[in-house]
Amino acid sequence: MAVYTEVTDEALRAFLAEYDIGGLLAFRGIAEGVENSNYALRTERGDFILTLYEKRVDPAELPYFLGLMDYLAARGVPCPTPVDGRDGEALRSLCGRPAAICTFLEGVWPRRVRPEHLAPLGAELGRLHLAGLGFPVYRPNALGPGGWPKLLDGCRARGDEVSPGLIAELDRHLADMLAQWPRDGLLPDGHIHADLFPDNVFFLPDAAGKPRVSGLIDFYFACTDLLAYDVAVCLNAWCFEADGAFNVTKARALIGAYAAARPLTPEERAALPVMCRGAAIRFLLTRLYDWTHTPPGALVTRKDPLEYLRKLRFFAAAVSPESIGA
Amino acid sequence: MAVYTEVTDEALRAFLAEYDIGGLLAFRGIAEGVENSNYALRTERGDFILTLYEKRVDPAELPYFLGLMDYLAARGVPCPTPVDGRDGEALRSLCGRPAAICTFLEGVWPRRVRPEHLAPLGAELGRLHLAGLGFPVYRPNALGPGGWPKLLDGCRARGDEVSPGLIAELDRHLADMLAQWPRDGLLPDGHIHADLFPDNVFFLPDAAGKPRVSGLIDFYFACTDLLAYDVAVCLNAWCFEADGAFNVTKARALIGAYAAARPLTPEERAALPVMCRGAAIRFLLTRLYDWTHTPPGALVTRKDPLEYLRKLRFFAAAVSPESIGA
Repeated sequence: MAVYTEVTDEALRAFLAEYDIGGLLAFRGIAEGVENSNYALRTERGDFILTLYEKRVDPAELPYFLGLMDYLAARGVPCPTPVDGRDGEALRSLCGRPAAICTFLEGVWPRRVRPEHLAPLGAELGRLHLAGLGFPVYRPNALGPGGWPKLLDGCRARGDEVSPGLIAELDRHLADMLAQWPRDGLLPDGHIHADLFPDNVFFLPDAAGKPRVSGLIDFYFACTDLLAYDVAVCLNAWCFEADGAFNVTKARALIGAYAAARPLTPEERAALPVMCRGAAIRFLLTRLYDWTHTPPGALVTRKDPLEYLRKLRFFAAAVSPESIGA
Repeated sequence: MAVYTEVTDEALRAFLAEYDIGGLLAFRGIAEGVENSNYALRTERGDFILTLYEKRVDPAELPYFLGLMDYLAARGVPCPTPVDGRDGEALRSLCGRPAAICTFLEGVWPRRVRPEHLAPLGAELGRLHLAGLGFPVYRPNALGPGGWPKLLDGCRARGDEVSPGLIAELDRHLADMLAQWPRDGLLPDGHIHADLFPDNVFFLPDAAGKPRVSGLIDFYFACTDLLAYDVAVCLNAWCFEADGAFNVTKARALIGAYAAARPLTPEERAALPVMCRGAAIRFLLTRLYDWTHTPPGALVTRKDPLEYLRKLRFFAAAVSPESIGA
């Protein structure tokens, strides 16, 4: 479910009148997405996505997200381009919510990840990181290592209801991981997507029928952080099979294509295992928080936190960067 | 939420290979709709809607629904046209569900009904009824008067939890209504939509900026029943204001435009009040059934049954066809 705010006809028409994109031809809610309300919008000028930002998004951060998308799109990254109104502003207001229109991207996100998705993904992620280097705004990662202890504290009261002993295990993992985290300045940083799961990456077949990336969407966790951490998020999100097994072939394809686009430093390669543990605990903790704080009747699909406990254990046991494909 | 079945890439590609509609360009879940999974599908040949029929729909009835849409579309009704596969079959199977692809219709359903929507709606409903007259399949209305006593019995155990005394009041209304229901053969019958709520009707502005109907969708309650009953459904669904007041101006516009397209017999006009009570109790009963049978954690938005109790009381108190706009 991803339509939380219903947009009336009058409000929509008044909103569209602030743009130079022609008359309204179609308007449908989109099922994908969890945080915001998304509509597929067709006007006489083409197809667009209208997003109303719901309460989990801080309006003060929207200029960063929209600015980064605009910056990346102008440099060839296939991400949505925010569309300006007649007054030059992309971030507007609709039905009491911050709202923006972005370009529509063709493509299909992979419901089942195949090995041949990983190289195009890695190459595109490397290009995204390079393209973003000059974007002059800094946004700290609220869900990075500095935020994990507080997030874990928020799960402390009810976390063991999900799995007995879970909180004590996470305390150990977190202390161990933070002790090994790369010291400031050791690894290159820049603008990262930070949530590049399969449902945020669209593919289309190229001339030879191989998947190519046609779109990267949902930049609303983007931030300024270690570039290698984005690779670690993808290793978590793309390289495990349905049975929980880590697919090192996929990992090698991802890392190899990434490094061909943007070479990894030796320190980045060495740090990948601990970054993977970090990414696993980040998704584990936000899922655990949602699991223990979402009322049972809420219209939100809760995601299983224990999927990420299994990934965390795998990465914690990984003996070398090579064993995770680096 | 209207994506219950996730379609994998491989399954989708194999499914599309059974059609002659070109390669896949985009595929997004649609938020609207309650009963089935709907996807917006773009191929090299244009835009389509892919529907997977979920468990509330009886597969044996799908040929009626798809056949009726095909028949109506061929006669100029702006409804989705089922797209045949290479073998000439529109009804196929995908991910273990019956599935069909239909044409995409432009337009926007009115989130807030304005008086000027009612005449185009009425005219289109009249044309739909005339266009369907020759369709040679009969499907009884499972949610018509013959089914209401059983539906009420299904709500008996817990109905009064929603409102004290509700079941006794519905017993009285139902007995009274069935006693006044037009005897068989008195009113003309044919193929009716039976669920023509605002979210099933798309509008676009005409050259003068007035709304015109661009699409009628969701024929999965369609059946063979009294034509005037479809008008009564629309009077329930389109002619009450948010404060519960009946808007007789809207009702007159609806009925007037309907009758201009398909003249109402004197018996139909006289029977409209009891048909309106029937339509009110039908939506009240299905909502009440869902309300009392849906587990609180289910990912379904339950609709308020008492909205239709207020409508039922209004129509039961209506002294004449004129008082409801007939």
